[in-house]
Amino acid sequence: MPNLDKFFSPRSVAVIGASRNPRKPGHVIFRNFIEGSFRGKVYPINPNADEILGHRTYPTVLSVKGRIDLAVIAVPAPLVPPILRQCGKKRVKHAIIISGGFRETGNEELENECIEIARKHKMRIIGPNCVGVYDPYTGTDTFFFPRFKLERPSAGSISLVSQSGALGSVMLDWMAMKNYRIAKFISYGNASDINESDIIEYLSSDRKTKVICLYLEGAKEGRRLYETIKKATRKKPVIAIKAGKTDDGKLSVRSHTGSLAGSPEIYSAAFRQAGTIEAETPEELFDFARVLSTQPKPKGKRVQIITNGGGLGVLAADSLSRNNLLLSRMSSRTLAKLESKMPKQVVIGNPTDLTGDATTERYADALAAAMSDPYVDMVMMICLFQLPSLTADIVETITEFGKRRKKPLVLVSAGGRFSEVLKKPIEDHGIPTFSYPDAAAKALKALYEYHNSD
Amino acid sequence: MPNLDKFFSPRSVAVIGASRNPRKPGHVIFRNFIEGSFRGKVYPINPNADEILGHRTYPTVLSVKGRIDLAVIAVPAPLVPPILRQCGKKRVKHAIIISGGFRETGNEELENECIEIARKHKMRIIGPNCVGVYDPYTGTDTFFFPRFKLERPSAGSISLVSQSGALGSVMLDWMAMKNYRIAKFISYGNASDINESDIIEYLSSDRKTKVICLYLEGAKEGRRLYETIKKATRKKPVIAIKAGKTDDGKLSVRSHTGSLAGSPEIYSAAFRQAGTIEAETPEELFDFARVLSTQPKPKGKRVQIITNGGGLGVLAADSLSRNNLLLSRMSSRTLAKLESKMPKQVVIGNPTDLTGDATTERYADALAAAMSDPYVDMVMMICLFQLPSLTADIVETITEFGKRRKKPLVLVSAGGRFSEVLKKPIEDHGIPTFSYPDAAAKALKALYEYHNSD
Repeated sequence: MPNLDKFFSPRSVAVIGASRNPRKPGHVIFRNFIEGSFRGKVYPINPNADEILGHRTYPTVLSVKGRIDLAVIAVPAPLVPPILRQCGKKRVKHAIIISGGFRETGNEELENECIEIARKHKMRIIGPNCVGVYDPYTGTDTFFFPRFKLERPSAGSISLVSQSGALGSVMLDWMAMKNYRIAKFISYGNASDINESDIIEYLSSDRKTKVICLYLEGAKEGRRLYETIKKATRKKPVIAIKAGKTDDGKLSVRSHTGSLAGSPEIYSAAFRQAGTIEAETPEELFDFARVLSTQPKPKGKRVQIITNGGGLGVLAADSLSRNNLLLSRMSSRTLAKLESKMPKQVVIGNPTDLTGDATTERYADALAAAMSDPYVDMVMMICLFQLPSLTADIVETITEFGKRRKKPLVLVSAGGRFSEVLKKPIEDHGIPTFSYPDAAAKALKALYEYHNSD
Repeated sequence: MPNLDKFFSPRSVAVIGASRNPRKPGHVIFRNFIEGSFRGKVYPINPNADEILGHRTYPTVLSVKGRIDLAVIAVPAPLVPPILRQCGKKRVKHAIIISGGFRETGNEELENECIEIARKHKMRIIGPNCVGVYDPYTGTDTFFFPRFKLERPSAGSISLVSQSGALGSVMLDWMAMKNYRIAKFISYGNASDINESDIIEYLSSDRKTKVICLYLEGAKEGRRLYETIKKATRKKPVIAIKAGKTDDGKLSVRSHTGSLAGSPEIYSAAFRQAGTIEAETPEELFDFARVLSTQPKPKGKRVQIITNGGGLGVLAADSLSRNNLLLSRMSSRTLAKLESKMPKQVVIGNPTDLTGDATTERYADALAAAMSDPYVDMVMMICLFQLPSLTADIVETITEFGKRRKKPLVLVSAGGRFSEVLKKPIEDHGIPTFSYPDAAAKALKALYEYHNSD
């Protein structure tokens, strides 16, 4: 198994092609290293400038005295081979080639030349034609996007591997806005050396990664990918968007990454057999990942709905049913206990409708009942925070139940800014939050299927 | 056809049950009338207070000198009949009964009594057990939610009719956050007098309403609803979420609004036959509505994808294909023209991938080509605003094309806050914006099907 640690936790980084021009990728990458939370050494490499952003530059890596763990290369494609030779001489063992203009534009020879140089020097390479890596724990960030345009999510337990650099990047930006968190991100571009299988193998042993998310258009080594995923899913969930699944999509894959997308049917079957959870959209990918990275194994597929809005309860029942989950039926003992505690207007059953004047106490009682009832496997709590009878202490109550991790629990809360403010601490405490029931139901289905697939 | 104008544009409103206690619905409703954009007269009715929020109160409507167009009633259920009698005496012809505690809790008699009083006085009633109406054009707003908790969307052309008051309300809050706009909103509760068919009939002739959105659990008069929708869809699209479509959902409808949800299959078939566009989730409902309220009729189902991110292009091709739309093939003339204008790395075809260094000019050329090519019916433009080669003038370019309304155009732009800021003016100019291609493809499908259903 390749050890990719140095790509994510280098102690020293050389940014080759660091430029004074703020529009150049090399400038943005260097700036992000020095202005972010990265704590290692950063060397800007540029033979045509003395200093960049107040930092002394070096004409080549060879003029750097200290060790260089990682080289980030952002220079025009034809300059990459000589740069790699210098890196080899300097005993740099890890390089990320951001530059494009290799196999994806027909320049196979240039790419092969790079690989030969790397092999000779036992150097491992991510790229070319990629955006590289992002690790919020170490501050390693090779994105050539300024942070004001493309925000970075904070540290979490979901890792994302993307064949497409641009899509991967904007997904991170979107995650940051949604307050979703990430462990590691890799865009591997042309996969000239390190490919999707290497990365999945590495992440399957990575302690910070609880769930692996993939965006794949095609694979370099189909059989190995299948075996790698199969092994990985025994340790942790692998969720994938397989792009190019339709004939039209397949054709567009060819003109994008040049991968052979393969027969959609064969891919889907192989993915499923390997234990991958398939997502159709980026939203689904992270919905599934948020639930799978935080929630315990459910014993079965019986879901209890608790709501303070009848309409959302009905939508939830419909959605669970469409996703082949069951509505739980609590024991008569639980029902009797709840009846003794609840006012007359409350509908005890499934959905349990605490009605529009539900208080935090009513929610606490209903949640406690569902969590201890033997016929309930998972809980979907729906809460309209806008209703006047609810005060902000509902947030603590929900997070308390979530922390105990007795049974899977998700929260559906529809609304605008006020609801989002209350949902944030709940999401932060590891209880996945949703706007409407359908997405929550699909994610619970993914959770159930992962734990009950073999 | 019932004239419901006075419910949305009353010149004078009596808030009956206006209270000094900020937690009471009557207080919040009164406050929203006086603090919002409503320009008519507002009379707080409360026999136990002299003034509320600095306004002189009246013990009953009978002590008000001027005419009262609309009474908004928020008092305990048993007090409603005598209040209605006073309203009758005062010749109030329109009343919204917010109060619950009628048929939905078994009090059929009390509800019937109210109806009898209303009939006797030729008074039309919305409710009871509802949140009433919201009209951003007149500022009429009977929601008992403070605006800081539940924001209101600004004025637009989508109307929403919701059998569930709570769900309808939080959908509006969510719309406000998403910058979606609304024409009129009605939650009709128990539909003791005015029901879903009356409202759809009214909205189908309402000039401000371009699309009617429905959340329905069941119908009072099934046959009439069918005929009403059938007539309405000839004038404008009707998009509906039919809740209680599954057996589990159906059971929960019974305990929520007490409607008979009817056989899911029969409903679906009747809906489709009547020309309704069905949505599964609130997100879909408004995605469809945004496209149908702003985009012209497409000639066919051939969609051109224009992107600056290859991965999103592939996802778009997959999504269009899954939704039975076709990828257009531009004429050889158009292709040749584009080839002469574009740099080598651009992939001209479908998707047309302008690649990561796409400029505003490149987008303008590609959009112009697709808009005039005879083999293109609709355009899905994908734009990653975060890429360094794009400047903010891309926003004007897109809105210019959108304004001409030559062919349906939607924008997909994934990302976080920076992208959202640029998407806002585009959405405001009537070009629907999406985060990922799948939702956009589903909405284009709905647009195509509405215009090609008969």
